[in-house]
Amino acid sequence: MNVKENIKTLIVDKPLKLDCGQTINEFPLAYETYGSLNKDKSNAILVFHALTGDQFVTGKNPITNKDGWWSYAVGPNKSIDTNKYFIICANVIGGCMGSFGPSHKNPKTNKSYGTDFPVITINDIVNAQVNLLDHFGIKKLFSVVGGSMGGMQVLQFVSNFPDKTKTAVPIACTASHSAQNIAFNELGRQAITADHNWSKGEYSSNNTIPDKGLAVARMAAHITYLSKKGLQEKFGRKLQERDDLKFGFDADFQIESYLRYQGSVFVDRFDANSYLYITRAMDYFDLAKQFKGNLSNAFIKTNAKFFVISFTSDWLYPTQENKDIVIALNAIGANVGFVEIESDKGHDSFLLDVPDFLSALKNFLDQSYKE
Amino acid sequence: MNVKENIKTLIVDKPLKLDCGQTINEFPLAYETYGSLNKDKSNAILVFHALTGDQFVTGKNPITNKDGWWSYAVGPNKSIDTNKYFIICANVIGGCMGSFGPSHKNPKTNKSYGTDFPVITINDIVNAQVNLLDHFGIKKLFSVVGGSMGGMQVLQFVSNFPDKTKTAVPIACTASHSAQNIAFNELGRQAITADHNWSKGEYSSNNTIPDKGLAVARMAAHITYLSKKGLQEKFGRKLQERDDLKFGFDADFQIESYLRYQGSVFVDRFDANSYLYITRAMDYFDLAKQFKGNLSNAFIKTNAKFFVISFTSDWLYPTQENKDIVIALNAIGANVGFVEIESDKGHDSFLLDVPDFLSALKNFLDQSYKE
Repeated sequence: MNVKENIKTLIVDKPLKLDCGQTINEFPLAYETYGSLNKDKSNAILVFHALTGDQFVTGKNPITNKDGWWSYAVGPNKSIDTNKYFIICANVIGGCMGSFGPSHKNPKTNKSYGTDFPVITINDIVNAQVNLLDHFGIKKLFSVVGGSMGGMQVLQFVSNFPDKTKTAVPIACTASHSAQNIAFNELGRQAITADHNWSKGEYSSNNTIPDKGLAVARMAAHITYLSKKGLQEKFGRKLQERDDLKFGFDADFQIESYLRYQGSVFVDRFDANSYLYITRAMDYFDLAKQFKGNLSNAFIKTNAKFFVISFTSDWLYPTQENKDIVIALNAIGANVGFVEIESDKGHDSFLLDVPDFLSALKNFLDQSYKE
Repeated sequence: MNVKENIKTLIVDKPLKLDCGQTINEFPLAYETYGSLNKDKSNAILVFHALTGDQFVTGKNPITNKDGWWSYAVGPNKSIDTNKYFIICANVIGGCMGSFGPSHKNPKTNKSYGTDFPVITINDIVNAQVNLLDHFGIKKLFSVVGGSMGGMQVLQFVSNFPDKTKTAVPIACTASHSAQNIAFNELGRQAITADHNWSKGEYSSNNTIPDKGLAVARMAAHITYLSKKGLQEKFGRKLQERDDLKFGFDADFQIESYLRYQGSVFVDRFDANSYLYITRAMDYFDLAKQFKGNLSNAFIKTNAKFFVISFTSDWLYPTQENKDIVIALNAIGANVGFVEIESDKGHDSFLLDVPDFLSALKNFLDQSYKE
């Protein structure tokens, strides 16, 4: 059954037809919840995680023993207030924190799926997660919220299930991956598959991991999460525990040391094949294409109230791409608010302590909850 | 002697003390020339190449059989007019097109230097190249010109040899590598050294090359050479010879195919260890630091006339970093012109057919030559 200990898991017993044509059955969906579901089940928020996130949104992640990835935003009295709302977050299918993914055993071969795992899409990911609503007996969510790839899931969810949420908050995201987005993801995939240990995805049979390639992929992605200005202010040309350049290839500069560290800690918690599959799902995402090029039509059936948030220094999913979502919503007279938050912290702003963002998110949710 | 056939090579017999403390002797400096040196030797232009360039500026590169890297700018009646000027370009030391570099045999071990090659700097690179002036009996160049790392060499050359050029044209460059610049270079180095075949730099003894890692490094760098908008206009989400997504990891998108191609052709012409050394030289470049933090002082002794050129969509060395050079020159009343060229082609604009750039460069040179 591939169910991890200490991880809540729903076994989805309804067949799910994937965009690739394959159908999956009886697959595990790992999730976590925070807060309490109220009596009329009207206070539930489905949070969607980003590329390397997981279901452990806040508090201590029991697997990594580190703080949850959205601890700044989710907790008692925080933007997504666990005293008030019931928060659900599922690990995406294709992932590596308990949900059905390429590291799971293929019953046909008794080996990990590896690259025999079906290529999944953002559409497949949200179609898997909607099963959690039935599981909890929730007819309509109060909100769907997510940043980056989580924001893509917000858009896809509202499009697929227009009546299943009262509000929707896509943050720092896009309705369609740009050529530059695809380029950076492809770079990461090439780094992983270039690793000698990747062995065409069958590394787990060899008891090894393509750690060097995965670290390079993470380093590449990490650069895109930070702004040029933010990097300059934080690191500039500061040296790493030395008075002068050493004329070698060790990490002379703090930024080098920082990137190496980011790469090395990532490989301890993330599966290389999951990285391939999830980046592929992101690259395939093109919501307008699902509606013959008209993004507005993705939202024409919903009455949900939207709040779109972007960050000034985000060059991965710049404000303009977030505004394109707002424009599509405005074109059909949808209920939509938009704010661009001033921040030097780049795309990562949504994960960090950015007070203007955190209060805007809190205000929107708490005001909408009263309505 | 490590001298390649078909490649003009000056054996520098003057010892060169490097910034790392080592001294090199009797080392080869490969170069090419175009046009004719006039009688009073007043029409010489020293062109400096960028990270992956070489001495074959224009015409057919005899090694790769492809057009020289600056064929748009250099040739008869072009911006750098070979009918009028005598153009010299040397392969940088640390490089792999004939100048002293890590692929050369170490007489002590009879194996390639590999990572025993000394770490070199932009300062070392220009100090090696100034020997070409003596070789040709040139007292004063008409101009020093270069883009990207070539622009760094322009700045360093004028600083080191304030009387040896009449004009100086730094293009799309910076006086100091930023944290983001270092980050991307470090990413490339990590990709190379992660390659199983790299073998701590001793791959040539194993008759193998770290081609996959070097290709990933090239892909990463290539993304930084193009603008987000340019990539979107050229590639967008266009598919590669297919009607729809294939739900696999082949190159579905043209941008993926393009990057893979860029990586694969690069490894045929470039040495992985040279990539490590030259990116290191770029990261170490900080001209202001050589003058206790005051960039103006780098130029205080020269009467050269400067022309600084940047491109609107260059996010690797943005206009502001080029302007910082202009500001430093203005602060000491130097003779300096500046133009920001409108282009969607990103950092690569200086290598491409960008008419406004090509005519600005031509006008500056031809006007200054008359003065």
